[in-house]
Amino acid sequence: MIYADNAATTRMSETAINTMTELMRDAWGNPSSLYAHGQNAKEVLEKAREDVAAVIGAEPREIIFTSGGSEADNQAIRSAAELGRKKGKTHIISTAFEHHAVLHTLEKLKAEGFDITLLDVHENGIVLPEEVEAAIREDTCLVTIMTANNEIGSIQPIREIGAICRKKNVLFHTDAVQAMVHIPLNVVDDNIDMLSASAHKFHGPKGVGFLYAKKNVRLSNLIEGGEQERGKRAGTENVPGIAAMAAALKEANEKMDENAVHLIKMRDRLIAGLKEIPHSALNGDPVRRLPGNVNFCFEGIEGESLLLLLDDKGIQASSGSACTSGSLDPSHVLLAIGRVHDVAHGSLRLSIGENVTEEEIDYMIKSVGEVVEYLRGFSPLWRDLMEGKKEFIL
Amino acid sequence: MIYADNAATTRMSETAINTMTELMRDAWGNPSSLYAHGQNAKEVLEKAREDVAAVIGAEPREIIFTSGGSEADNQAIRSAAELGRKKGKTHIISTAFEHHAVLHTLEKLKAEGFDITLLDVHENGIVLPEEVEAAIREDTCLVTIMTANNEIGSIQPIREIGAICRKKNVLFHTDAVQAMVHIPLNVVDDNIDMLSASAHKFHGPKGVGFLYAKKNVRLSNLIEGGEQERGKRAGTENVPGIAAMAAALKEANEKMDENAVHLIKMRDRLIAGLKEIPHSALNGDPVRRLPGNVNFCFEGIEGESLLLLLDDKGIQASSGSACTSGSLDPSHVLLAIGRVHDVAHGSLRLSIGENVTEEEIDYMIKSVGEVVEYLRGFSPLWRDLMEGKKEFIL
Repeated sequence: MIYADNAATTRMSETAINTMTELMRDAWGNPSSLYAHGQNAKEVLEKAREDVAAVIGAEPREIIFTSGGSEADNQAIRSAAELGRKKGKTHIISTAFEHHAVLHTLEKLKAEGFDITLLDVHENGIVLPEEVEAAIREDTCLVTIMTANNEIGSIQPIREIGAICRKKNVLFHTDAVQAMVHIPLNVVDDNIDMLSASAHKFHGPKGVGFLYAKKNVRLSNLIEGGEQERGKRAGTENVPGIAAMAAALKEANEKMDENAVHLIKMRDRLIAGLKEIPHSALNGDPVRRLPGNVNFCFEGIEGESLLLLLDDKGIQASSGSACTSGSLDPSHVLLAIGRVHDVAHGSLRLSIGENVTEEEIDYMIKSVGEVVEYLRGFSPLWRDLMEGKKEFIL
Repeated sequence: MIYADNAATTRMSETAINTMTELMRDAWGNPSSLYAHGQNAKEVLEKAREDVAAVIGAEPREIIFTSGGSEADNQAIRSAAELGRKKGKTHIISTAFEHHAVLHTLEKLKAEGFDITLLDVHENGIVLPEEVEAAIREDTCLVTIMTANNEIGSIQPIREIGAICRKKNVLFHTDAVQAMVHIPLNVVDDNIDMLSASAHKFHGPKGVGFLYAKKNVRLSNLIEGGEQERGKRAGTENVPGIAAMAAALKEANEKMDENAVHLIKMRDRLIAGLKEIPHSALNGDPVRRLPGNVNFCFEGIEGESLLLLLDDKGIQASSGSACTSGSLDPSHVLLAIGRVHDVAHGSLRLSIGENVTEEEIDYMIKSVGEVVEYLRGFSPLWRDLMEGKKEFIL
């Protein structure tokens, strides 16, 4: 089995599993309790906060633990919106290919009277800083642009965007769920005011994530209740999960450079191989993309059948975001970079892991080629293309 | 060490730890993924949903998994408020001694224009159904009353309250975080429209909970994003945590009757012993209270010192809710049942566990007695009371 869906979720590392297992037994106290057992749990929690903060160059008190990336995205955007509304600033800038945790929150804010500008991400899936700058208005309260796209892996010029936001005195949030520990990130150097991350994307447990918010950014609560997380996120802290996330993050961060060298080599070999398939095209920027991300469109086929046949061959992949699989609509990300419906339907995302081998890459190239050819053999769309009733786009 | 703070959190059961550990290795796939590995995780998730639903007499599709009890409370109340607002109904009934996850959400709604009635909980900490009925108005959209109080353990007549709400066509939500698997609960028989629960209160993992919502109740999202949980709660599902919660819930439910018999015997022995301490009083109803809950006030002392000295004697307890410990204000629960500030400050909650022994109970009685006497020895308040400068209340 070749697991090539690391963008959907990752296998937990042994370090993370062991941390979790150990702490479920040893640090199950409530960190809010005053007795020693509770205070031990509190220490574990605060050590995790230090470790997480250190990886992104933040201060520990700038980290709020959440139940995952979606919650962090929701809280960041809601907080900025609330701050903006108080000052009469109700304009938010984002892009059309953000994760739905961002887009659906923005849709709700639109219904509440906010004005939302979704910037063009162009053919290669990259936002232009000068277009961010041009879009900023007097009443802009937030720019929220993901660090790297979850489907096509394109890496955004967040440092430049952050610098523009600083200059214009507008808050900058970035959904770094896919980028975290795949590319270097430093909230100070990268001019980030708020950042969201999710543990299960970097070999940590599910149900845990974090939100970085610069100390001058006043967060609003998404979850009201107890005084946990400096009063900004209620609910007894998931100490074992949080510590396991910190352990996974630290480990992945230490291996980031080494992993990236290998992954980029493997990724580019996979891209080169898949390009040989006729009427195929890479989605997203060939260079400014996550080390492990490969995303292709194959004309004349349906992505879903492709996935099921690849699964039969022991390759686990996806057509786009796992969060929207089962939906019949084509990926909003592929539409945003200008793919037409028919082409967007024939998409394949292979998000390879650090341990992938050259043999596995070659097996994937061979298998995808076979499956695409097989599916085209009885695709009415492909027949129309071959018979000239429709024109090839790719 | 005697852990007597099970209302704050519980030690994870071996069943829950083993389920978690096994599934972190075997079911780490994303349940939204189409390939077999993802679908296996989906099966684990749906089996957990069936198990959880079965315990409370619900249908599986009526269960939404959340990150805990606070999130569930927030979502339930926000959903009812949103439904109410659409019909011009902006009145909500609750009590003054709910958990802060409820009270703070209600405060926010008040600021948004809702009218909140907080019912009297009387000296014994129990709401009168007839007072609920009398408080319901034409514009009431929700009654939210906890099944059992987290500090003083008093059990509310939720079945009667639920019946009144049904008759009056008002939604009824109950925070069952403390009551779950301590007293029998059935959402059909008990006339419950929405119910919140938290895994770490019944030997499950932290960071996981659930919200039951009757199938005709339309939930609003607290967390927007992907289509998980029938589109009502975004974020990749914490499959190992959810399955561990289901396993813990099932196990605790099977042992509920047996545990209750033992706990009630131990509880009543502890209450009888502590009553012997002069100028002390039990908080909450002596009979209609959770099997494991003991809560006392001791005149002339500070609860915090009491806790630290008990910790030295190997007894881990709390003065009230863990969520507000560290706060200097006396418990809002004790104030709600009419305790004055000075008395409320000298509170002690001992929430005993299923494995507590008679010897441990007797050791707790002896230790509390010694510590109370010791503390009174240098308490200025106690001196004033003894010298007649202040009058005894208890």
